[in-house]
Amino acid sequence: MAPVCPGQGALMPSDTIRWVGDENGHAELIDQTRLPLECEYITCRTIERMWEAIRVLSIRGAPALGIAAAMGLVLGIKDSRAETSAGLLEDIQKQKQYLETSRPTAVNLFWALERMERVARENRHLPVAALRRRLLDEALAMQEEDRRICRAIGKNGAELLHHGDCVLTHCNAGALATADYGTALAVVYRANEEGKRVSVIAGETRPLLQGARLTAWELKESAIPVTLICDNMAARVMHEKRVDAVVVGADRIASNGDTANKIGTYGLSVLAMWHRVPFYVAAPISTFDMQAADGDAIPIEQRGREEVACWGGHTVAPPEVDVYNPAFDITPAGNITAIITEKGVASAPDRAKMASLHAGPDSSQNNTKTSQ
Amino acid sequence: MAPVCPGQGALMPSDTIRWVGDENGHAELIDQTRLPLECEYITCRTIERMWEAIRVLSIRGAPALGIAAAMGLVLGIKDSRAETSAGLLEDIQKQKQYLETSRPTAVNLFWALERMERVARENRHLPVAALRRRLLDEALAMQEEDRRICRAIGKNGAELLHHGDCVLTHCNAGALATADYGTALAVVYRANEEGKRVSVIAGETRPLLQGARLTAWELKESAIPVTLICDNMAARVMHEKRVDAVVVGADRIASNGDTANKIGTYGLSVLAMWHRVPFYVAAPISTFDMQAADGDAIPIEQRGREEVACWGGHTVAPPEVDVYNPAFDITPAGNITAIITEKGVASAPDRAKMASLHAGPDSSQNNTKTSQ
Repeated sequence: MAPVCPGQGALMPSDTIRWVGDENGHAELIDQTRLPLECEYITCRTIERMWEAIRVLSIRGAPALGIAAAMGLVLGIKDSRAETSAGLLEDIQKQKQYLETSRPTAVNLFWALERMERVARENRHLPVAALRRRLLDEALAMQEEDRRICRAIGKNGAELLHHGDCVLTHCNAGALATADYGTALAVVYRANEEGKRVSVIAGETRPLLQGARLTAWELKESAIPVTLICDNMAARVMHEKRVDAVVVGADRIASNGDTANKIGTYGLSVLAMWHRVPFYVAAPISTFDMQAADGDAIPIEQRGREEVACWGGHTVAPPEVDVYNPAFDITPAGNITAIITEKGVASAPDRAKMASLHAGPDSSQNNTKTSQ
Repeated sequence: MAPVCPGQGALMPSDTIRWVGDENGHAELIDQTRLPLECEYITCRTIERMWEAIRVLSIRGAPALGIAAAMGLVLGIKDSRAETSAGLLEDIQKQKQYLETSRPTAVNLFWALERMERVARENRHLPVAALRRRLLDEALAMQEEDRRICRAIGKNGAELLHHGDCVLTHCNAGALATADYGTALAVVYRANEEGKRVSVIAGETRPLLQGARLTAWELKESAIPVTLICDNMAARVMHEKRVDAVVVGADRIASNGDTANKIGTYGLSVLAMWHRVPFYVAAPISTFDMQAADGDAIPIEQRGREEVACWGGHTVAPPEVDVYNPAFDITPAGNITAIITEKGVASAPDRAKMASLHAGPDSSQNNTKTSQ
């Protein structure tokens, strides 16, 4: 059964999540739980529907979650009876708290909601209607910023790839995780826009199969050659010299360059070093955690046994067998060839280069690249 | 739902496959396709039923397949109308060819059938009834040999483990793959018999999940502590110093020590080297292929896309996405700390040590160990 997304072929920048209409409008988002077999949009007309969409992973990926939360907040004050902006601010705080209960571990969700609340406070002098409009504008601005960041990451990263390269990636750091064409996959999309004909090997990414379900799907939609493998085949395909570079996203990057990303990333970094394949992390500066001295300061979320022990309603392991299911791992900076951001590229990242990149100018605005 | 095997607790040596009665009897085997949720025996009264059981992987694992094929041949001549041993020999050759069509890649299956045919030829002077009895005896002898080999591998390997060690294993090289308690898992079982309290981390082993379905199940049945992980978590658990040794089986070992085993094994060997964890291969001498100069001479079976793209009737990848699905990989001898066999242990295996071990006396007979 073929995907049924409107506008097949290249994924449009606004496909993953989009706002329709003015501040009284609604949000639409691809229901990622139904991919790859069906590509259908969910219409979110209420904050409750957006809460549910986030909760059940209809939308996921750190940047996309921030935008979803911001739009959810706009939905949450659509029917506010507040007659003053002070009253609306109270509603905003209530709805913010509600949205924060949707997925407690998604950092961008909290960050986006904080930003929305700050904007509301800063604009409390506005009449209620204007303030609601201002907040929708902020949500749309976040989406626009994320687009620009994706494009800049893609541009900076594509310079590292060569014509005909094959990129191995893990999980989904693509269009479905952002407002535009992703972080890790932005590098691939951009290289192909430049005519470099870069193909992809996608690790399926157990336990939740984001590589199989999402990355393979969006690349196929974009007509970029993609081959799916099980995660444990990565070493073999590297040995067979099928991989020219590994490019992955990041959930959090410590101030020394140690990188938290989907479980399995660290192993890939070791295999890449072993086979002398460059290993790139592509992520926005917003994932830099300059408070974290190194990877040890990043907590690793442990998830439930069912993700590993069950599959599509089938039990694939003995009842009550112990399962260890860390959702992330830490790739030490020493295993990373370069970190690709919207502000430039840090080769052989260390504390000094991270600080310099973090403090540096945003090349996504002016297209200059700070190569270090 | 708890497993319902008769004789819960330690898996009995004859549980995986057993013969009931005389040469007019039948075979019984655990239906491994229904594990781990149900442990039920299939009764094979005809060669056709055994063929089917092999074909659909109700029984798998190289040593177990050899025994199943031999027993299948005994079933195939049960109702022979041959009145002379020459006539019976013709029937045997016909049934042998039929069984060979069940799983074309299982080397032990061919080896066992060749051996049965040779025994039949060597004993063609016997009356028909006695020859049929002789062939059953040969099948039972193979089973007995395999038991002795498993025990010797276990004994030789257990010496390499320490009290409280945690062993990471991949796929299933245990009781369900052999006539006794396995090859890689024999080492674990034996160490525990010696009171060493060795626990196991089982990689689930995508795509067919033998680690989750079979290894986790048989270890739990045997009350050996086991924790299930996704294959891509191996690097993380090694980094966390949860693994004291990796022990895996083998499908074929080249004359220089390069080892073919389930896809994912090679990656584990690289990760083990990186984390300075010893990496052991446990396998019978019958897996040595002294004709193969090195791993490059071992063909890698490519399997169908459905194993990766579908699960339990669910499609988990976009329709028609390319899939690369090698069933095995090659671990270079240089990554292997030691190869454990029934004849002894080859540490830092190379061509000379492999030849010496291959030609050496069988310590499973007299319990002496050729440590090299």
